[in-house]
Amino acid sequence: MTPPASRAGAPVGVGLLGFGTIGTGVVKVLQRSADVMRDRLGFPLRLVRIADLDTTRDRGVDLAGIRFDADAPGLLADPAVDIVVELIGGYDVARRFLLKAIENGKHVVTANKALLALHGKEIFDAAERRGVDVAFEASVGGGIPILRALREGLAANRILSLHGIINGTTNYILTEMEQTGAAFETVLKRAQDLGYAELDPSLDVDGIDAAHKLTLLASMAFGAELTFKEVPTEGIRGITPTEFASAEEFGYRIKLLGIAKSRVGADGSERIEARVHPTMIPATSLLAKVDGAMNAIAVHGDAVGPTLFYGAGAGEMPTASAVVADLMEIAREIRRGRAGRVAPLSYLPESLRPKPLVPLGEIEARAYLRFTALDRPGVLARITGVLGDHGIGIESVIQKGKGRAGESVPVVMLTDVAREEAVRRSLALIDALPEVTAPTCLLRIEEEL
Amino acid sequence: MTPPASRAGAPVGVGLLGFGTIGTGVVKVLQRSADVMRDRLGFPLRLVRIADLDTTRDRGVDLAGIRFDADAPGLLADPAVDIVVELIGGYDVARRFLLKAIENGKHVVTANKALLALHGKEIFDAAERRGVDVAFEASVGGGIPILRALREGLAANRILSLHGIINGTTNYILTEMEQTGAAFETVLKRAQDLGYAELDPSLDVDGIDAAHKLTLLASMAFGAELTFKEVPTEGIRGITPTEFASAEEFGYRIKLLGIAKSRVGADGSERIEARVHPTMIPATSLLAKVDGAMNAIAVHGDAVGPTLFYGAGAGEMPTASAVVADLMEIAREIRRGRAGRVAPLSYLPESLRPKPLVPLGEIEARAYLRFTALDRPGVLARITGVLGDHGIGIESVIQKGKGRAGESVPVVMLTDVAREEAVRRSLALIDALPEVTAPTCLLRIEEEL
Repeated sequence: MTPPASRAGAPVGVGLLGFGTIGTGVVKVLQRSADVMRDRLGFPLRLVRIADLDTTRDRGVDLAGIRFDADAPGLLADPAVDIVVELIGGYDVARRFLLKAIENGKHVVTANKALLALHGKEIFDAAERRGVDVAFEASVGGGIPILRALREGLAANRILSLHGIINGTTNYILTEMEQTGAAFETVLKRAQDLGYAELDPSLDVDGIDAAHKLTLLASMAFGAELTFKEVPTEGIRGITPTEFASAEEFGYRIKLLGIAKSRVGADGSERIEARVHPTMIPATSLLAKVDGAMNAIAVHGDAVGPTLFYGAGAGEMPTASAVVADLMEIAREIRRGRAGRVAPLSYLPESLRPKPLVPLGEIEARAYLRFTALDRPGVLARITGVLGDHGIGIESVIQKGKGRAGESVPVVMLTDVAREEAVRRSLALIDALPEVTAPTCLLRIEEEL
Repeated sequence: MTPPASRAGAPVGVGLLGFGTIGTGVVKVLQRSADVMRDRLGFPLRLVRIADLDTTRDRGVDLAGIRFDADAPGLLADPAVDIVVELIGGYDVARRFLLKAIENGKHVVTANKALLALHGKEIFDAAERRGVDVAFEASVGGGIPILRALREGLAANRILSLHGIINGTTNYILTEMEQTGAAFETVLKRAQDLGYAELDPSLDVDGIDAAHKLTLLASMAFGAELTFKEVPTEGIRGITPTEFASAEEFGYRIKLLGIAKSRVGADGSERIEARVHPTMIPATSLLAKVDGAMNAIAVHGDAVGPTLFYGAGAGEMPTASAVVADLMEIAREIRRGRAGRVAPLSYLPESLRPKPLVPLGEIEARAYLRFTALDRPGVLARITGVLGDHGIGIESVIQKGKGRAGESVPVVMLTDVAREEAVRRSLALIDALPEVTAPTCLLRIEEEL
């Protein structure tokens, strides 16, 4: 059988901007999967050009037939390049290059969640005007095809909620802390030594990377115009071994989650709940079993019900898997002569709406509280008194061991469902008590995943 | 911003053939998600016509503006129908109607795995010749967008293996047996009373439905021409409460899995391992946590590594979610004026290869064996002797309780990795021993998921 004319034929040209770990993975995948890809596409993807400032380091891949230099503008203007893959990272240079590529009529693929979470609208609008495609599957969940799932697989659904483990570094640290009983700083140091965490780890451990990704997920899930600065974000620096011991006792595990929910009011108006914070989740839930550097996103749709998508959230080859999937999708469209098959954020640009975020204070959830207080008579009564004054019921209390005179002991409580602002006001008062010697640790509990 | 001309505009017409549970779900999703779908597509999907032999039963949905009668040929020829959804099921009538729809130039969406597993090639070839699309996301894994994942999300990968819980009825029965300790027949009866199992349950409990789905998954994963009759298939009728007790003791759980692996020989030739059978899997694996009627498919790609896709594998609304996702994808193509964007089986028809199946006898795995033997001196020695003669090492033995004179007791063993044909030959000899009073139960163990 002869392939239809639309399938066979000349290769589609790819230019790679940024030749670090992921870029090297992209070269490897393009080379070793060439036959599989051709069997699926009918024509080859050809990497014609790479630009990186470091042109000397040996990446251990065969570059025969590929032009490799430091000339990014040349790559962006090269007529042999149909699709530009941006793997530089960061905001300024990447943004300028992406916009230039679009201006030059190139389709673009990027893994840059930070850039898209801040400047997504500008980039998507530019691409729409110029009639080129922007694809970014690799920006969330590494190799997991979660953006495709939201954009197409679940497109018949009104998405009700999503809960994602979307940062591998923090999930690795939390898993190690739980399994070894070690403190955060110890495990972080180990993760840095192993290359699992950056020397400046704040993008990961403070939840910023997860908030970037959640911004993209929530925009796609709800058709909402969001920027990441609106998303309340807490990291994992405050978690101590006590939290893991307590979680186990209560039947929970602790995960840094990106959470997004649609909240429709009685008048039909919709607001979005979006937040990133360490969360206690039932130990029996599927998300609770996602360990180490793996990622998973649980998506609840009104028709499909609960779903979950699991895989490696980072790394050379998994991320390259997503980049090359995007290249294949765009290459098909190039051969078919038309861009814009599916809107980048799933909802058409003109259908995206600015949907207000629910203030964190309005969130209602059960809470885990760890107080650090001197072991004196009456302390527990004063703490529970403040909580009671704010209408916060207590479900369980654990106080382990007896402090020596003048020593602080941790007291752990689970509350009934409470409004976050009431919890916050209580904690402000409690943390001001003379017997309370350190800020109280608050973890929110999500029961329904 | 004005929507581009390619997006806004007239609706795409849908005709529904078969108005049972899933069909009713499709009507519900099309109605209640109409706004979300329009915000994503830019134009509406309009259900213009339904045909079913039963035109009187009230399905509890509003049919205003929809022509509903028993005239299937009329629907298939109706110029207002762009896409035909086939939800009749079965082989003969469904096949005839699908081929007629294609002949009439209609695109088709179906959930009919049985039909595609047997007559897929005929239907895909007819659609290719006529230039129309065939979509069937709902046929495997209900609402889980697993076919899209294989076709596009993971398309840059050489797929190494997949392990799927792809039949909800058997997963429900196995979960109930495990949790209640009840026997297969008892739980089956309960499942039938609840409507989770058919009155004739053999399609589910004998693994046939799972084999249909595995045939499609393996064809897509490996670009292999397979038909379901080749796939070795065992169901769950032989599982007793002893298996669950033993599995717990050994750290396993029991799931009916569809398993497919690519096996590349030293000479580069590829064979496919494909089989459906109850399997012991590590209790710590993610697949082991998939309970009740839920489905999940673990896919291992050479670049992406391990992934897993989880969700409801059946049911009115989850299945409708997948059907309508297919309608949306095809509707975009109709508006863009061209079919055939992605090949139905991921690999282009001309790239599909007949790849030989690895005979079951060549499979190498650890095995769980439950012998039923009279409790007489020397029996264990004779059984282990036969196994030893066939080079099968024994890792653990459990014999619980002491039988009274003339009574049979179960003896449970885990073997080392052994070749299936050696195990089979041993069991033929062992089951012929005078002390062995019932056929031996064999469960294969999969360690790496």
